[in-house]
Amino acid sequence: MNTNMGVDYVLVFRYANSEKEEAIRKFDDLCQRLVSVGLHIEVRNGENHSLLVLVRVEGEDALWGEVYRSRVKDWMHGIRAAAPPKETQEALEAEPLYEAERLRIIYQLITNPENEGGAGITPKEDGWKEVESIFALHDHNYNKAWMRKWGSQWFLTTEDLDELRGRLGEKIAFYFAFTQSYFAFLLFPALFGLSAWLILGHFSTLYAIVNGLWCVVFTEYWKHQEYDLAVRWGVRGVSNIEAKRKDFQHEKEATDPITGETMQIFPAMKRLQRQMLQIPFAMVAVAVLGTLIATCFGIEIFISEVYNGPLKSVLVFLPTGILTTVMPILSTVLTNIAKQLNEFENYESQAAFERALTQKIFVLNFITSYLPVMLTAFVYVPFGALIVPYLDVFSLTVRPFAEHDDQLKAPTEGFMINPARLRKQVIYFTVTAQIVNLGMEVIVPYLKRQGFAKVKQMQSERAAKRGGAPPDVSENDQPEEAPFLARVRKEAELDVYDVTTDLREMVIQFGYLSLFSVVWPLVGLSFLANNWLELRADALKICIEMQRPVPFRADTIGPWLDSLSFLTWLGSLTTAALVFLFSNDGLGPEGHPTDIKAWALLLCIMLSEHIFLIVRWGVQMAISKIDSPGRQKERRERYLVRKAYLEDSLGGEAGRRMPKMSEAGEKDVTRESLEEEARESSLHDVKPEERFWRRQRGWKDSAVVGKGMIERGVVDDGAREETKKEL
Amino acid sequence: MNTNMGVDYVLVFRYANSEKEEAIRKFDDLCQRLVSVGLHIEVRNGENHSLLVLVRVEGEDALWGEVYRSRVKDWMHGIRAAAPPKETQEALEAEPLYEAERLRIIYQLITNPENEGGAGITPKEDGWKEVESIFALHDHNYNKAWMRKWGSQWFLTTEDLDELRGRLGEKIAFYFAFTQSYFAFLLFPALFGLSAWLILGHFSTLYAIVNGLWCVVFTEYWKHQEYDLAVRWGVRGVSNIEAKRKDFQHEKEATDPITGETMQIFPAMKRLQRQMLQIPFAMVAVAVLGTLIATCFGIEIFISEVYNGPLKSVLVFLPTGILTTVMPILSTVLTNIAKQLNEFENYESQAAFERALTQKIFVLNFITSYLPVMLTAFVYVPFGALIVPYLDVFSLTVRPFAEHDDQLKAPTEGFMINPARLRKQVIYFTVTAQIVNLGMEVIVPYLKRQGFAKVKQMQSERAAKRGGAPPDVSENDQPEEAPFLARVRKEAELDVYDVTTDLREMVIQFGYLSLFSVVWPLVGLSFLANNWLELRADALKICIEMQRPVPFRADTIGPWLDSLSFLTWLGSLTTAALVFLFSNDGLGPEGHPTDIKAWALLLCIMLSEHIFLIVRWGVQMAISKIDSPGRQKERRERYLVRKAYLEDSLGGEAGRRMPKMSEAGEKDVTRESLEEEARESSLHDVKPEERFWRRQRGWKDSAVVGKGMIERGVVDDGAREETKKEL
Repeated sequence: MNTNMGVDYVLVFRYANSEKEEAIRKFDDLCQRLVSVGLHIEVRNGENHSLLVLVRVEGEDALWGEVYRSRVKDWMHGIRAAAPPKETQEALEAEPLYEAERLRIIYQLITNPENEGGAGITPKEDGWKEVESIFALHDHNYNKAWMRKWGSQWFLTTEDLDELRGRLGEKIAFYFAFTQSYFAFLLFPALFGLSAWLILGHFSTLYAIVNGLWCVVFTEYWKHQEYDLAVRWGVRGVSNIEAKRKDFQHEKEATDPITGETMQIFPAMKRLQRQMLQIPFAMVAVAVLGTLIATCFGIEIFISEVYNGPLKSVLVFLPTGILTTVMPILSTVLTNIAKQLNEFENYESQAAFERALTQKIFVLNFITSYLPVMLTAFVYVPFGALIVPYLDVFSLTVRPFAEHDDQLKAPTEGFMINPARLRKQVIYFTVTAQIVNLGMEVIVPYLKRQGFAKVKQMQSERAAKRGGAPPDVSENDQPEEAPFLARVRKEAELDVYDVTTDLREMVIQFGYLSLFSVVWPLVGLSFLANNWLELRADALKICIEMQRPVPFRADTIGPWLDSLSFLTWLGSLTTAALVFLFSNDGLGPEGHPTDIKAWALLLCIMLSEHIFLIVRWGVQMAISKIDSPGRQKERRERYLVRKAYLEDSLGGEAGRRMPKMSEAGEKDVTRESLEEEARESSLHDVKPEERFWRRQRGWKDSAVVGKGMIERGVVDDGAREETKKEL
Repeated sequence: MNTNMGVDYVLVFRYANSEKEEAIRKFDDLCQRLVSVGLHIEVRNGENHSLLVLVRVEGEDALWGEVYRSRVKDWMHGIRAAAPPKETQEALEAEPLYEAERLRIIYQLITNPENEGGAGITPKEDGWKEVESIFALHDHNYNKAWMRKWGSQWFLTTEDLDELRGRLGEKIAFYFAFTQSYFAFLLFPALFGLSAWLILGHFSTLYAIVNGLWCVVFTEYWKHQEYDLAVRWGVRGVSNIEAKRKDFQHEKEATDPITGETMQIFPAMKRLQRQMLQIPFAMVAVAVLGTLIATCFGIEIFISEVYNGPLKSVLVFLPTGILTTVMPILSTVLTNIAKQLNEFENYESQAAFERALTQKIFVLNFITSYLPVMLTAFVYVPFGALIVPYLDVFSLTVRPFAEHDDQLKAPTEGFMINPARLRKQVIYFTVTAQIVNLGMEVIVPYLKRQGFAKVKQMQSERAAKRGGAPPDVSENDQPEEAPFLARVRKEAELDVYDVTTDLREMVIQFGYLSLFSVVWPLVGLSFLANNWLELRADALKICIEMQRPVPFRADTIGPWLDSLSFLTWLGSLTTAALVFLFSNDGLGPEGHPTDIKAWALLLCIMLSEHIFLIVRWGVQMAISKIDSPGRQKERRERYLVRKAYLEDSLGGEAGRRMPKMSEAGEKDVTRESLEEEARESSLHDVKPEERFWRRQRGWKDSAVVGKGMIERGVVDDGAREETKKEL
């Protein structure tokens, strides 16, 4: 049976590593806080030294107040055009509460600080170290249906995405929307790439241009689509509601001149200084990773191109070995440094924090993913002939295997660089690596889980042998709840899903397409296949390997958008350079890499870059013209609000038009009125201004006077001729 | 006496070139329309075959309805945070009606189409050819005071600008604000330039960098300031209220899916095609103007450097002569073509129309202003030695004066280019041309007016001699109005002030600073002096030479902003190139222009450009952090609106918090309750879910249970050690 017992959230309270009294005090506090915000709780035993606090809302209408609050808040921040109606029923009929919204609001109820009406429970953060995680339970029936549906169709429709958004929230829905749209767009480069590969061969200028154009169109069109989805899902602008970061340290406090609230301030100047640290950090990262990559690269070249002793076939894999072992360690270290750096920069809002972190992570990924190819393309091939002779230094690595020194001698002349190397490398990164990645995502976690299960089993057995066995957590479960609780305990052990890693993967992948696909036009095809699987694999991951994610909101894929634009731009440089250098198979335009003219190369790059910038501007213009359902929806809502207001505001006395002057005109000119006029004007207390405005009685009079003037003043043709001449 | 008789607007109705009946019909229509919107009119005779229709609003409160309308409309478009209060008094006390607003609203009342509640009178446009102009009368007392004030102070304060905005409207105020801020910013380059000139000499890298940085800071800071002023003046976002263009031709009509109104549509695709014509146009312009400039340039060089016959000193001025005669004609022709092209592109809104036109005009100005210098810098100096020998073609121009052919022979070798030429040229454009310009603006119109007066006098005299003298317009004026009417007639003859020409002047001037000032660092100083005068001269021009401008609104200096950014960016290229080429006096880095390495030059330019882009990004970041009164004002208004709404919305039943669960907790555990529980749970109709949630009676019970579990489950240190190990 798959019921969730109406549980909304499960809190895992782990007391394994805290003192008994402390733990008890904390737990008591926890219960009180949860109840104080109106949640109903039940407590059960959890796996190794934890408690499961199961939470639910007592009746939907109780929640309504919170829903209304959050919707009003949205309206205040301009996320919704119209304020929500105040009557519960009416409002819920107008826009029913969807699951993700419901869960989000309950989550906020638990985590928001007290002053915002929440329980202020922040898992793993200041004072709540014991609360290990807060998660909702998977809806297994839905998940099954989901998997079945997606497994059976080629494309995801917008309805699928809506469905997803209703369940897992906008943030995750946006990831899938992006990947889906990327997948759809890939059809073109896949087909075009194939034909280019068949007809044009490598490094074709035509392919480079088309591919560059495609990248621009995709990036810009996604921005357009993103906006549309945000409106469709009613989250346009949520990124402006800035959630304060819990562990933001303020230096001084000041009262906001506007709201009168006390603001916590951290001087921007100081933050800037701290941000400056990014520059040395980036340099170090480039240096460290760069040298590692360069060295392995050097060794490989040495062995494959210079060394000709025994075991060559084996030794060739030496550098790869080094790389695959050392690289992960280094990048983990650097990532941690980046995180600490980010903490140190001490951002005020969660959004800013994540943005900054993403940028740092992107830099690291950029180096590890693209530097090797760049080395081959822009160092090895052009300068290979010059460098290789100096590679003897690496002879150390293979000296033990060599019989005599000739095997270690680099040919001083007549060394020919090997253009195929570049292609091989690109193929490795765009096919092999992608497949490996996919495997890692799905299989490794599965094995991990199995392993842990084994370990636990062994523990308990060992403990049982020793006698001092801790009581089995499930021993005093009610039989009828047992299976349910078992499932809860299992889900409590799962990892938390982080959507940004998946997003990063996609963006980095896009990078290969925009930067290097000219080397091997089949890149698009490979990605197309890969991403069809990727979409399903990620869904599967969320369903099986991860706790059900908290449905956070978002109105964009965030800073990754900048990364996309950056990669597209960089593509215009690298592609131009590649085409220029490698036209007729890496021997340069004149057939000898050494003959390549530096100024010509630079000129070519510059041109390509500026053409790119102009084209992008044009594409942006064109796309901004495109209308879309979302935009129409937005306009309609705004229009309705305005209409409603205008009707009730301009109806009144305030909105009246100016009175028509005609009645003054109707007053016909009688003898009396004339005399009266005369008298008035003769009076001396009448201001000259008044007299001026009374010369003509009403507009008809003025009209008559004017016509008279025309009659008299109108010019006979002769005169008109003259005036013409004179003017 | 300086009274304006309370006249709000004067319409000049000229019937000189239309048939009598037609004219009379039109005039009658005119009067009716004016009156129908509640205006009071008086008619007087005007200069050669025109009528003066003087218009005023009958009493302020009559106008209030219109004011309220326009303010509500603003609020609808998000220009004001709060809706205006409905009570006239209250509203007018809250924000008194300032003169510019008043005049603007009356102007709209006259010109708006009927369906928007206006009189639909559009001077010089479809059907209203006779209405020559609509203008308000100058407030001479104010103008005098204004001139006196500005004449006596060095800097314009924000209050001065507010004052100006209150009188002449935001659009003109923005021009003065910009020029003022530009003037203030110029202090730095003036001083720095002076010291650079004294210490560093020409083409100093340091000056180039500082100047480039200054340009970026100025451009970005102005954007910031502009926003601030827009908020201060309550016009932020007016550019979004798009005024339909009168002579926009639609191709088909459709009903707006949202508002249900019929929209007039012109297919964007077709417009795009038409816009494409700009490219050939630009090419032609470059070709035509380019050849002219190049030719004159060539001739000049030939004469000054090659020719050594008689009359050389005179002939040198030949090219300048050609240029000053032919150039204006050509550029007028091209400008007209540009205007027609713009008409042809058939824009829907006035704003779009002006934007497009400005861009075209900018292109033309760009060529005429900067091309000559660029020719000298990037063609003559680097390639002079190669080109000069081929200049014999120009010998024709001076052959008649030469005695023998040797005087026309270009020295085949040993020709040295003349680096001073570049500096001379820059000085000409940044000093001489500026002064000339200033003169043209103030003196020429004055002379023109004098001339016209003479002509008119002679006409009437001649006419008088011929006897058939048209009656003098002023003959039947009331003596007490005579001087006033005389003034009105004079102002009716004046030109209409167009602010964009003045703006263009400033932007083009800025261009010299950002593009070429590295050639001659005193540019800043010259501009500083020039602009102090410029500001006053323009004010004077508006007061004396022009009709009082209609106070239109604006929230930016418009497309010129893009031109500024563009010039700043281009500066990063040209400056880099100039410094590279001309370091040690135009002889290139190695002392021989021919030795200049193309790749080094390109690299230098590329670097400079990308550094520029990064720096600009940084500056934008930094400036966006700066807070300002305007922004604070905006935030405060928004905050107040929100507060107001929240108070009255969240007070109600809808906004209530969720009920505390505690009362359930209070229920203490008695024997009865236990039994009752037992009974309940035994009942079979109770769903298992319900039973699940009833296991623990209220939260206190749950807390107790949980604590119990912790008591039992808590790990003794030994065990904890183990768990640690195992995990």
